[in-house]
Amino acid sequence: MKRVGVVLSGCGVFDGSEIHEAVLTLLYLDQHGAEIRCFAPDKPQMHVVNHYTKQPQAEETRNVLTESARIARGEIAPLAKMNLDQLDAVIFPGGFGAAKNLCNFAVAGPACEIDPDVARIIHDAHAKGKVIGAICIAPALVARAFKGEAGVSPTVTIGTDAATAGALREMGATNQAASVSDVVVDAKNKIVTTPAYMLGPTISKVAQGIEKLVKKVLEMA
Amino acid sequence: MKRVGVVLSGCGVFDGSEIHEAVLTLLYLDQHGAEIRCFAPDKPQMHVVNHYTKQPQAEETRNVLTESARIARGEIAPLAKMNLDQLDAVIFPGGFGAAKNLCNFAVAGPACEIDPDVARIIHDAHAKGKVIGAICIAPALVARAFKGEAGVSPTVTIGTDAATAGALREMGATNQAASVSDVVVDAKNKIVTTPAYMLGPTISKVAQGIEKLVKKVLEMA
Repeated sequence: MKRVGVVLSGCGVFDGSEIHEAVLTLLYLDQHGAEIRCFAPDKPQMHVVNHYTKQPQAEETRNVLTESARIARGEIAPLAKMNLDQLDAVIFPGGFGAAKNLCNFAVAGPACEIDPDVARIIHDAHAKGKVIGAICIAPALVARAFKGEAGVSPTVTIGTDAATAGALREMGATNQAASVSDVVVDAKNKIVTTPAYMLGPTISKVAQGIEKLVKKVLEMA
Repeated sequence: MKRVGVVLSGCGVFDGSEIHEAVLTLLYLDQHGAEIRCFAPDKPQMHVVNHYTKQPQAEETRNVLTESARIARGEIAPLAKMNLDQLDAVIFPGGFGAAKNLCNFAVAGPACEIDPDVARIIHDAHAKGKVIGAICIAPALVARAFKGEAGVSPTVTIGTDAATAGALREMGATNQAASVSDVVVDAKNKIVTTPAYMLGPTISKVAQGIEKLVKKVLEMA
């Protein structure tokens, strides 16, 4: 049984994990017989966004781990405790949370900072030959983690937005286009990516790429 | 194209919609070509529960519509505006939100009160021959809506908990067992139910019953 860590970043597309992407990741991991372990950083979210009005709620603060626990039905641990020695692969679903709470790419672009535990996990996975899956905007985490490291230029997809793709290239990644139902496999670095809601448009389309990603991650793990 | 209303009750199993059940409902509706319209009541949640510690957060209030919008990616309308004339069917995912925010079955059992819009929607659907789908604990809403109405004894599943099943029978419903991968069809009243996380144990099992429910609802609509 392959053991896969899923790194969540809150609960909701505009300030946390994209819920559909996260749930579909769990669905296909379970369908394909993997053991799932969810993690999230125990720290405040960058923003709380009212998902009905789409306006930030400046007066409110929420914790990334606490909100991520909603998606995981309470079965989740702090990211600080994530140990790659106990896992065969790690998957990062998307949503603005990946670009606000796991790094700050959403506001700082290619000059973004990355959460130290996220950087540790990506480097550990790479060093130990574990597989990394990244969905939607989450390939930005992979690009940021290896920024400035000679010899590692991860090949990832990020959708068709030219500015976003340019920002990834600025961080040293190689951008490769893929449709919403497809994945990009960087066999050398053991990285699998799919654009999901960077392209959309609907959940059944996004599901095709995520199922393919999960199967590929498990196959390579 | 069949038009299906999905009634959400917040975002998280312990105080809102069970997220997996809600997302799987959207997934299979989209996969099977339905047009999806999400709704939720614009009112405060009964509770806010910290899903990591599983403790109520007494000092915090959240709005059912605002939190439900996280699952719907912002594409949602207030339940008061839900009009059965514009829909072919309605589906209620489960989670404690169905038993705390759409009715108060979680605290009042068979003596529970039901949200007036939820009662209106269930009665309207029944009167107009639209199909009703109810997942997990949500069959309690159907039982409560028809409580005391001579001639309507909906046949529904609710899992294997004897006390819960007894409470549904006290409200006048007929309880029928089903496995997590199966549905109960009340053809006379056009009601389809599946136990989902009342039985579990994992997302891929729950998905089997929900996909069957969605297909049956669309077939009967």
